[in-house]
Amino acid sequence: MPGGSDQTLRPFAWRAEQLYPDTEIVSRTHDGVFRYDYDEYGDRTAQLANALEEAGYGDGERLGTFCWNHHRHYETYFGVPGIGAQLHTINPLLPDEHVQYIVENARDETIFVDRSLLPKLEGAAADDPSAFESVERYVVMGESVPDTDLDAVAYESFVGDQPTSYDWPDNDQDRPAGLCYTSGTTGRPKGVEYTQGMLWSHTMALQQPQGIPVDDDDVVMPVVPMFHVNAWGLPFSTTAGGAKHVYPGPKPGPGDLANLIEEEGVTVTAGVPTVWLGLMEHVRENDVDLSALDRLVVGGSAAPEAMIRFFDDHDVELLHAWGMTETSPVGSAAHLKGSLADADYETQLEKRSKQGLITPGLEFRVVDDDGEEVPWNGEDFGELWVKGPWVTTEYFERPEANDLEFEDGYLKTGDVVSVDEDGYIKIVDRAKDVIKSGGEWISSQELENELMAHDDVAEAAVIGVPHERWQERPLALVVPNEGVDRDALEASLRDHVLESYPEWWVPDNVVFIDEVPKTATGKFNKQALREEYGDESLVEGRVPDDAAPGA
Amino acid sequence: MPGGSDQTLRPFAWRAEQLYPDTEIVSRTHDGVFRYDYDEYGDRTAQLANALEEAGYGDGERLGTFCWNHHRHYETYFGVPGIGAQLHTINPLLPDEHVQYIVENARDETIFVDRSLLPKLEGAAADDPSAFESVERYVVMGESVPDTDLDAVAYESFVGDQPTSYDWPDNDQDRPAGLCYTSGTTGRPKGVEYTQGMLWSHTMALQQPQGIPVDDDDVVMPVVPMFHVNAWGLPFSTTAGGAKHVYPGPKPGPGDLANLIEEEGVTVTAGVPTVWLGLMEHVRENDVDLSALDRLVVGGSAAPEAMIRFFDDHDVELLHAWGMTETSPVGSAAHLKGSLADADYETQLEKRSKQGLITPGLEFRVVDDDGEEVPWNGEDFGELWVKGPWVTTEYFERPEANDLEFEDGYLKTGDVVSVDEDGYIKIVDRAKDVIKSGGEWISSQELENELMAHDDVAEAAVIGVPHERWQERPLALVVPNEGVDRDALEASLRDHVLESYPEWWVPDNVVFIDEVPKTATGKFNKQALREEYGDESLVEGRVPDDAAPGA
Repeated sequence: MPGGSDQTLRPFAWRAEQLYPDTEIVSRTHDGVFRYDYDEYGDRTAQLANALEEAGYGDGERLGTFCWNHHRHYETYFGVPGIGAQLHTINPLLPDEHVQYIVENARDETIFVDRSLLPKLEGAAADDPSAFESVERYVVMGESVPDTDLDAVAYESFVGDQPTSYDWPDNDQDRPAGLCYTSGTTGRPKGVEYTQGMLWSHTMALQQPQGIPVDDDDVVMPVVPMFHVNAWGLPFSTTAGGAKHVYPGPKPGPGDLANLIEEEGVTVTAGVPTVWLGLMEHVRENDVDLSALDRLVVGGSAAPEAMIRFFDDHDVELLHAWGMTETSPVGSAAHLKGSLADADYETQLEKRSKQGLITPGLEFRVVDDDGEEVPWNGEDFGELWVKGPWVTTEYFERPEANDLEFEDGYLKTGDVVSVDEDGYIKIVDRAKDVIKSGGEWISSQELENELMAHDDVAEAAVIGVPHERWQERPLALVVPNEGVDRDALEASLRDHVLESYPEWWVPDNVVFIDEVPKTATGKFNKQALREEYGDESLVEGRVPDDAAPGA
Repeated sequence: MPGGSDQTLRPFAWRAEQLYPDTEIVSRTHDGVFRYDYDEYGDRTAQLANALEEAGYGDGERLGTFCWNHHRHYETYFGVPGIGAQLHTINPLLPDEHVQYIVENARDETIFVDRSLLPKLEGAAADDPSAFESVERYVVMGESVPDTDLDAVAYESFVGDQPTSYDWPDNDQDRPAGLCYTSGTTGRPKGVEYTQGMLWSHTMALQQPQGIPVDDDDVVMPVVPMFHVNAWGLPFSTTAGGAKHVYPGPKPGPGDLANLIEEEGVTVTAGVPTVWLGLMEHVRENDVDLSALDRLVVGGSAAPEAMIRFFDDHDVELLHAWGMTETSPVGSAAHLKGSLADADYETQLEKRSKQGLITPGLEFRVVDDDGEEVPWNGEDFGELWVKGPWVTTEYFERPEANDLEFEDGYLKTGDVVSVDEDGYIKIVDRAKDVIKSGGEWISSQELENELMAHDDVAEAAVIGVPHERWQERPLALVVPNEGVDRDALEASLRDHVLESYPEWWVPDNVVFIDEVPKTATGKFNKQALREEYGDESLVEGRVPDDAAPGA
């Protein structure tokens, strides 16, 4: 077979260290801004690799992270897959029950955890020790280990005395290198594995003109969490491009982001709309210099037109992109086609507000309920099916899910879309009954089950209602048992949900109704509920800022 | 295995046809400029695919092309690999003997041939019919077939009545999709196969910021022949980018190129230095509007500094790239690093004149005679070894060559290079004794054998001598037998070489010497000869313009 050598992450890190030894990696931490360069990064990942090898890893073991965005997390991005192990980025915003399921399912052998997230992980482990049986050690990201019942070591002690060089092995391109769980749909979270080849392909795909190209004079700040599909792959592509990294650390506020943009000269940044709404507010109220910023990538939820306008006014190109855990994640981006360069601004805005053009290297089709492909007329719609080298073809150890989600080599995304004459994809509905709030998924079905488990509830449905800041928030529609005091029930329901779920899962409002409308087959008619109650006034202003994901 | 779907060329053509149906493909032909668009291109490649399927192809058969750069040749680029066959681009400038060997070795079943190149192919076939035994048919690129002894059909008849849609199969990424012979080294030409995956990888690599990125508002004109490693991959990347193609057709002169740049708004073009020297001369003497032209890629031989200056003065960025048949071909490009943006112009020029920075996704090392890696100091040198997903790992059916050319997963390029502190690779010598003239290889060893086969020659050595227009030209150093008339011998040697080789292989000058200096092991000491006779005055002005490759 003449087919070239395997596609792995190694050449990207190797090249950055060799060609750009002095280019910086900057990381906001609890203790201030930390900075070093690719040369030291190379030393540190080698130390990490040596530590992991000494711990007996290097043959496909899964090692978890439970961290915000910072340089140590970035070290695991190349260090863990580089030795032949698998980097499992765990979302610390999930309900404990999900974290427990995920760790048990993945059988993580080590978990790297931030000091500030240790209590959360400790709580989940204490609550269900058997789920954490596979975990041999916790590595706390820092110099020291706080008081904990877990068997923990500080990251700096773990890697500290190791040699700063490492003979990185030739990994097979089919070797799993990453793992991320998607909790969007109902039921248990599903793992998506990324092979070395998928991560290589996705990195190269991002670097195309119609991806999110990063050159060696860029400064890239991923605000999207590193536990969200590898921060959309940006730490890898930034390395491939030889660019400077800026990691905004734990819970960055709009002021922190503005400072980093100004002080580090950030040229490219990426995150969910909620983050940018915060930044917009901050920019309006403060004197912020955005002149270095060239491109701002929005994903996770649709970018409002007003947001595009705002950043256009500040000479920042807002690029709206679409993807999902299963697509590594980038699948489309709303670049303005060359043929639209002379179109009027409103037409351009309309195009740029859509999910965009399929990324070169992928293929898709849009399939209606009869299994027919729909025409590209901007009106007909169907489910988006997508396939390509960085689109998964199966879920981790979930053969029963595969029959539902994959067909004819395509991933069935669950997004209902139209495609216009220019080829721009637009999401018009979601086939699956889930709510996306501030970039994080909330399962309406889980909430309904939880609400209906309350003694005073006869029936309950949960729908997502549009919300300016969080894009969507859950609204509960509850049929109480007869004679129940409604005010007392509302408060009680809140406490009830909080027993099992984080605060940001709690429905913002409870509307009491007489009956949940049903479809012909007896299912909850969510469509009818959304039509009647899907008004933003029902949730607006009801969720405190610090009760939402990432806050 | 979760590894995504296979990497093939299909998504690129599919996407261009779907998203950019009206974007043009322009082709200069004997009969004027022909133009159509991706929509029609999709129809035509489908017709070609149906014709090929009807002919019984689709399972790895090798189909040759013997063509200049035009739209029909481009149709074979996706049509042939798309059905699962292998596109073998044959260099029509080669000596007949090489063409015969190549066709026999590849066992081509069909050859697509330009009308103007038919006599050359016919001659080669008549001279050695057994080498062409595998060829079932010749498809002449055009409406009709000229008088010929070959079993030929016109391309338009071949594809004309076929349906304009085709159900492109799922090809395996390891399936050979391309084949190109390299005749640079001594001995028989060696075939390099490109799998679907290698062509996919190389396309994605070209599209990076540090490759030769093409966006959908670009207009790309590959002047580099399409038989030279797929015109450096540009027809594929131009399709991936959704850009307009311009093909300069048979033997384009500087005036033709200037016209196409002006009239078609070419933004990116690529070719060997000889081509650009011609264009520079033309621009100096004529009123040429280069304002559309953004980037000009130079490869095949080193770009002279004066050429970079010239195009800088005309606001055209000259990008010097390096590659070889074995690397698909792009392996490095002399992009200016971000850190050099403020360096003085002379420093920048020095960097941009080098072969450049390794392309992201590849790895290399530079190994000295003792097998040690040399430091990056711009002075120490060694042989360049390179590896990566688009670098071949073996030659086509030449296991005996593989032991020599590959080591430790790396391709040993034969180029002797230094690497400076910034990581710029510079070719300082060639480990192999070959001459590169106007972008084409000449084997000095073959010429020596041919010269020494002359009755009046005792010994003969051939060296490459620098030449302004052709970069290098062959100089013969001949020891005549005693008593021979030297003037008569020089004329006779010319005729003698012409019996087996094309005019552009004939040494520009013959210098008679008493003895060929030898090394300690008795080999010709080429180094000593180059030192004594490597002066350009010995060949300057001696080769007519129309005697050189491509003319």
